[in-house]
Amino acid sequence: MADETSLYELGMAHHQEVWGAQYKRPSVYEQLDPDLYRFVIETAHGRVLSRPGLDLKTRELLIVATLTTLGRERELRTHVNGALNVGATREEIVEVVFQMGIYAGFPAMRMLAGVAAEVFGERGIELHGAGDQ
Amino acid sequence: MADETSLYELGMAHHQEVWGAQYKRPSVYEQLDPDLYRFVIETAHGRVLSRPGLDLKTRELLIVATLTTLGRERELRTHVNGALNVGATREEIVEVVFQMGIYAGFPAMRMLAGVAAEVFGERGIELHGAGDQ
Amino acid sequence: MADETSLYELGMAHHQEVWGAQYKRPSVYEQLDPDLYRFVIETAHGRVLSRPGLDLKTRELLIVATLTTLGRERELRTHVNGALNVGATREEIVEVVFQMGIYAGFPAMRMLAGVAAEVFGERGIELHGAGDQ
Amino acid sequence: MADETSLYELGMAHHQEVWGAQYKRPSVYEQLDPDLYRFVIETAHGRVLSRPGLDLKTRELLIVATLTTLGRERELRTHVNGALNVGATREEIVEVVFQMGIYAGFPAMRMLAGVAAEVFGERGIELHGAGDQ
Amino acid sequence: MADETSLYELGMAHHQEVWGAQYKRPSVYEQLDPDLYRFVIETAHGRVLSRPGLDLKTRELLIVATLTTLGRERELRTHVNGALNVGATREEIVEVVFQMGIYAGFPAMRMLAGVAAEVFGERGIELHGAGDQ
Amino acid sequence: MADETSLYELGMAHHQEVWGAQYKRPSVYEQLDPDLYRFVIETAHGRVLSRPGLDLKTRELLIVATLTTLGRERELRTHVNGALNVGATREEIVEVVFQMGIYAGFPAMRMLAGVAAEVFGERGIELHGAGDQ
Repeated sequence: MADETSLYELGMAHHQEVWGAQYKRPSVYEQLDPDLYRFVIETAHGRVLSRPGLDLKTRELLIVATLTTLGRERELRTHVNGALNVGATREEIVEVVFQMGIYAGFPAMRMLAGVAAEVFGERGIELHGAGDQ
Repeated sequence: MADETSLYELGMAHHQEVWGAQYKRPSVYEQLDPDLYRFVIETAHGRVLSRPGLDLKTRELLIVATLTTLGRERELRTHVNGALNVGATREEIVEVVFQMGIYAGFPAMRMLAGVAAEVFGERGIELHGAGDQ
Repeated sequence: MADETSLYELGMAHHQEVWGAQYKRPSVYEQLDPDLYRFVIETAHGRVLSRPGLDLKTRELLIVATLTTLGRERELRTHVNGALNVGATREEIVEVVFQMGIYAGFPAMRMLAGVAAEVFGERGIELHGAGDQ
Repeated sequence: MADETSLYELGMAHHQEVWGAQYKRPSVYEQLDPDLYRFVIETAHGRVLSRPGLDLKTRELLIVATLTTLGRERELRTHVNGALNVGATREEIVEVVFQMGIYAGFPAMRMLAGVAAEVFGERGIELHGAGDQ
Repeated sequence: MADETSLYELGMAHHQEVWGAQYKRPSVYEQLDPDLYRFVIETAHGRVLSRPGLDLKTRELLIVATLTTLGRERELRTHVNGALNVGATREEIVEVVFQMGIYAGFPAMRMLAGVAAEVFGERGIELHGAGDQ
Repeated sequence: MADETSLYELGMAHHQEVWGAQYKRPSVYEQLDPDLYRFVIETAHGRVLSRPGLDLKTRELLIVATLTTLGRERELRTHVNGALNVGATREEIVEVVFQMGIYAGFPAMRMLAGVAAEVFGERGIELHGAGDQ
């Protein structure tokens, strides 16, 4: 198994692959404590999200579902972007919105719908928006 | 059982009855996807909230309790207004505040207290506010 | 304002009114610590649930909504019984079931549906149960 | 848009496709109220989960993530089975387990790990189980 | 056992000991209802947090863990300050941040990290912040 | 920083220190996947819980608070035992019970009270249990 130096490199490579230039440093983690930043990069990005066995798009959609359920809006914005960055389509995100309504409730669906509409707007992804025709 | 056209009409009638002119369109749902908007109106408003067997005021108070528990502040504001619109009194809302402290914890109670104080202020409902005399 | 002796009596009277003979002592609270038991009776039952301004049935339905959202199944059984004890009907409980599906999600609705079916069975309340006709 | 009769048929077809003979009736929903059963089949299965735009396997994995986050163990068992029924592999489920540790916390990961181990055992899917070699 | 007048005084003394001059009145509780304010001071501060048997620092750290898990950011800021006011060190808060990542998930850890970084900044507590060296 | 071999050893030493002979193997993690077991030992036990800067007793009490809030009863039993194993007293656990009532709500407090009463019983720790005298 990889030692920690390579977990850090693996984690940074994962981070770069999902967010690239969108990522602004210093993150709050490294502001607070350099060890905390290493912990996140090595553990979340290097040790878990870089594992083979599940593609990056499915991983990001699963994270979107989890964050919507937990009600964590700020991280949700990051990962709706992440999902789109690794190949999720507008249509797939909208399907996750519908499905969250059933499994986490309509208030959760409302949060994801709002975040998705904002992110689509920022990225110039066309919204239907023509009202209920 | 009603077909979908009438579920939509039923849903819009429920929405109009609870919020009327307070409701601003386009909602985030219709901005994101017209199907999503239909889904919400037909399912939540037309199919569930319009059912007989429970009065609108009790329904809105139950939604207030659920949203307080979930920590969904934006929707909570909508439904504290909704509850007042369909006949809940200042006193009843304050009773829900107390009760949430016991069942969902004081941080949840604090959220509802803050939202209620804001909504009462916007609607010109007198706050006690004279401090602990 | 009432002193603590009367809060305890007020609380026990509330408890008796909602559950009466259904209530088995010693509760886990008094097993663990007599002070904890007093705290629950005086605070939840004496100080909050006994307040005027909201009827007992609405209070129990709000507790059912909160416990369903939180996923606390054991207490949910207690309060579905409590709601029925203070006048809620089978139909009203079923309406809360539907509504929880929208606001807390279908898995929460499923928990309440299961608990309600059990409690109705124990109390000899007729279930429809004839399948989807 | 489909009328309700076809939503019911669409929903039952989805249900049959995911669980087939594993599904035992009467469900708790139809025991409690035939309308509630129709509501679940038509809304969750007919109206949302049958939508094109996201494959069944991804849908089930998203449900697994949501139920793990919510701590709903009974439904989780149903949907770990559902995911495997529509093509998820042992390896993919294990990847979801790891990922839930990061996003919903290790206690959530522990719940999913326990359910997955049970379901794999019941289905004769080989567990590693040889300990930490 | 103490009567309510002394519970109020006990509660105010606890409040003063933890926050002192940081506390701004009127709080939202007293704005909404003087009884609600008394309820909070007497129950939370007078009856529970003033009990002997657990030191104030441990109590505040436990509250920080609970609020982080619940995702209540505003109250979290109050209690990170409270913990520091009664003797918690920067290092201890950072340890709680790490530990929340494991038990409540990395999105919860992220919330606490952000709040801690802000509070440390406001109080002039040195942040590492030099990045991952 | 330690390499992974020593993280594993550090983690096992932490585990041994908190639970010792109470710990039954194989755990569900190693049954499911040896990598998952390593991940838990190295990350939770080796990398976080073994850090200096917070004593083991405070760490276990914080975990008890988090698990109570999340409603994870099985892990709660493990960590009430863990807290007692590393020096928490009956009185301190009871104080956490009271405090959870305020911050996570009385249903959460009820869960912890029930688990604590069971664990105290199993360990021969005297319960008051004489009722409200």
